Amino acid sequence: MANSKYEYVKKFERENYLLPDTYVVIRVDGKGFHKFSKFYNFDKPNDLKALEVMNTAAYNLMNQFGDIVMAYGDSDEYSFLLKRSSEVYQRREAKWVSLFASSFTAYYLMEFSKQFDLQSKMVPIFDARAVVYPNPQVVQDYFRWRQVDCHINNLYNTTFWKLVESGMTNQEAENRLIGTLSADKNELLFKMGINYNNEPEIFKKGTIFVREPREDKKRKQVVNKYHIDLIKDDFWHSREGLLQ
Amino acid sequence: MANSKYEYVKKFERENYLLPDTYVVIRVDGKGFHKFSKFYNFDKPNDLKALEVMNTAAYNLMNQFGDIVMAYGDSDEYSFLLKRSSEVYQRREAKWVSLFASSFTAYYLMEFSKQFDLQSKMVPIFDARAVVYPNPQVVQDYFRWRQVDCHINNLYNTTFWKLVESGMTNQEAENRLIGTLSADKNELLFKMGINYNNEPEIFKKGTIFVREPREDKKRKQVVNKYHIDLIKDDFWHSREGLLQ
Amino acid sequence: MANSKYEYVKKFERENYLLPDTYVVIRVDGKGFHKFSKFYNFDKPNDLKALEVMNTAAYNLMNQFGDIVMAYGDSDEYSFLLKRSSEVYQRREAKWVSLFASSFTAYYLMEFSKQFDLQSKMVPIFDARAVVYPNPQVVQDYFRWRQVDCHINNLYNTTFWKLVESGMTNQEAENRLIGTLSADKNELLFKMGINYNNEPEIFKKGTIFVREPREDKKRKQVVNKYHIDLIKDDFWHSREGLLQ
Amino acid sequence: MANSKYEYVKKFERENYLLPDTYVVIRVDGKGFHKFSKFYNFDKPNDLKALEVMNTAAYNLMNQFGDIVMAYGDSDEYSFLLKRSSEVYQRREAKWVSLFASSFTAYYLMEFSKQFDLQSKMVPIFDARAVVYPNPQVVQDYFRWRQVDCHINNLYNTTFWKLVESGMTNQEAENRLIGTLSADKNELLFKMGINYNNEPEIFKKGTIFVREPREDKKRKQVVNKYHIDLIKDDFWHSREGLLQ
Repeated sequence: MANSKYEYVKKFERENYLLPDTYVVIRVDGKGFHKFSKFYNFDKPNDLKALEVMNTAAYNLMNQFGDIVMAYGDSDEYSFLLKRSSEVYQRREAKWVSLFASSFTAYYLMEFSKQFDLQSKMVPIFDARAVVYPNPQVVQDYFRWRQVDCHINNLYNTTFWKLVESGMTNQEAENRLIGTLSADKNELLFKMGINYNNEPEIFKKGTIFVREPREDKKRKQVVNKYHIDLIKDDFWHSREGLLQ
Repeated sequence: MANSKYEYVKKFERENYLLPDTYVVIRVDGKGFHKFSKFYNFDKPNDLKALEVMNTAAYNLMNQFGDIVMAYGDSDEYSFLLKRSSEVYQRREAKWVSLFASSFTAYYLMEFSKQFDLQSKMVPIFDARAVVYPNPQVVQDYFRWRQVDCHINNLYNTTFWKLVESGMTNQEAENRLIGTLSADKNELLFKMGINYNNEPEIFKKGTIFVREPREDKKRKQVVNKYHIDLIKDDFWHSREGLLQ
Repeated sequence: MANSKYEYVKKFERENYLLPDTYVVIRVDGKGFHKFSKFYNFDKPNDLKALEVMNTAAYNLMNQFGDIVMAYGDSDEYSFLLKRSSEVYQRREAKWVSLFASSFTAYYLMEFSKQFDLQSKMVPIFDARAVVYPNPQVVQDYFRWRQVDCHINNLYNTTFWKLVESGMTNQEAENRLIGTLSADKNELLFKMGINYNNEPEIFKKGTIFVREPREDKKRKQVVNKYHIDLIKDDFWHSREGLLQ
Repeated sequence: MANSKYEYVKKFERENYLLPDTYVVIRVDGKGFHKFSKFYNFDKPNDLKALEVMNTAAYNLMNQFGDIVMAYGDSDEYSFLLKRSSEVYQRREAKWVSLFASSFTAYYLMEFSKQFDLQSKMVPIFDARAVVYPNPQVVQDYFRWRQVDCHINNLYNTTFWKLVESGMTNQEAENRLIGTLSADKNELLFKMGINYNNEPEIFKKGTIFVREPREDKKRKQVVNKYHIDLIKDDFWHSREGLLQ
């Protein structure tokens, strides 16, 4: 409504309109979650309740933004894929990035306060970034990158905390794992009575949300939740509509 | 930690480093707050409790980011001025914008839940934008622009709701105000028994936070709160350190 | 070599790295060529000698930058397509845009001075812009856009100048053409004894350069010149390697 | 004029509007001028005729763009300062950068062909970049940086070529100079009969063009040429209008 001689300062505003007809991934990331997880005493190496808070926040965000077609999350991060043709807010980067960070924070906080004893002096904060991917190949590889990352971190953390549980100090456990390959860690775990293959899928694979047609009614869409492999082509071949 | 053949997708990431040695203002803005304020039944034209929730969020943000030297807010928006030399997160735009949106949301939500009956189906969400101003003159004019905006909106809203209170429908009040100048609105209010000058300063001027030296100990800094005029030069002349 | 306390000013430099794995088109455009063509008395509506100067400049540029896979030009503009994987100068926009403008100018000037009586007071100047296209479809449509543009302009100009030649003033010819469709212009030309279909292909279609394998030796590449249709799919289907 | 269904490709175009109310410096730089100077047999360490070609090109550019208030050049580079308020081409970066590169190339080529035996197989090419400086201090330091650079390079080159002239191979001269300070080079030169202070100012200081009021008529402006120190404050103090 207002109109004043000072309004000229608006000409300093700059917008970055993300390239049209490309796949934009917005990744939301916990700030200082190492400290946060200690403060709230998260289970190690994975806190199922905390992961489900992340999942609920992501699910709510997908319901808020209809242009999100898929999401992948593990630990304290979540990646959201927007449909190629999305023109919400004219693809303005700052708008998308700030709204995703804010909405995710709000949904996380609401759910967290139900599951944990939320305290004012330690609130959850997330940053966000948007990345533009020009073709389906790189988008798929983006999600593969995150899932491989989940696997590598989880195998490490599972072994690390098992070693600590078995009596090592954190430092000793860290030293023990230096230079070990996946096979070594699997074997170590096995010796301590754990078959890594039997670990919960949500820990090993993270969580995938996909917006897809309901099986019964083709016209209606629903957001499905998976803890499955998306590295092999199967995941993508059976969902060809996703990257069209 | 992870390192895979898919990591090449990182080369698609782009960063906008905001120009060094400039004044950056980050403005946080409520999303859909018209609806939000209706849902929570805010007082019209101003809800003092809701304004103080905004102020508490802003104050907490200033305590979190030491590089914020000043903030100005009214209605559902808040502008934060970062010190010229700030190099936090290497001045990365997406980082700043998303962290401010997220942090403000978290602090707002925490305080809001103390003052109102917060419900899951209507959570507060904020976007954010960063604007680069190259010199003190335009920074000052930026804040003047926002305070003039506050004044114009508040005078309008005060008159509008007084007319409604006096029996007009919203539409009638709107029509009555079309084409009126400030003087006309002041007079209208006066006839309805209100001297606009006596309205609370927080409504007329908004809220200013300034990080400044404590009067007693020059080395220590404190964040002071004001509801005063920043359009005249006095405000800036008496705070020369602010824009150095 | 130099290293001084003033070198800090380099931190104000910003680079825009064009998105990897995308099709970049750099379009070079004559500045003030209306005046330029008048000064050097170009034939109307097309000056074949001047067009060949453009073509020579474009051909030389393609020989200088091996990563240009195709070019299209008409009138005073030329578009260059870089191969998707090009990493020359790390895809820095300012570098590409300035080098293309400078090189094209140098090559144009050299050739122009052979064909025309070049004078100091009127030198050819070109600007340049880079546009990022994410997939083959939009790249093809980009070149279709330019060729349709060439056709529309050439049909108009051919009719316009024929009307002027037949005795109309420029203003009369302009008025005569307002609101006419392609069919109208074709008929007008026909009445003045010209079958537009028989006009030279270089005027109607512009000029295309394609870097392609030599027919005899598959390993060697050569830059071929065409004045053919690239709007129909044929052009692209028979050159599948071009956009891979 | 043209309007087709392919015109949608324009929506992929992006513009970078350089921040208003800031000092923009556009630096034009010779591409491969080491090779270029060898081909045309430039005098070593400085070719006065070649430097004057640079200067003529810069002077012509200043006459073309009235918004250039100052220029500084040495060797194969030239920096142009645009006035803070310039809105030419809406401050579009690609436009400025490409036009400066193209114009400088055209003017250089024209003058070069008068002074040297220009040949088609070796044409001069320049790139260009634009840098935004927010305040007078950094602009001044930018030019100081370039002049210090000129001095350091010239002292080195003068000594190097004198050593070669005195019988050393290039490699021997290079080795001789490793680790030497300015004082050492001055002394070396002195022993070979050269007082560096007496070297031509154009070599030691480079060339400065300033657009300033004519002494006789205050209203008229003229472009003056200097080979003087701009590192000390004197240069700037006596030209206060330059950075206003």
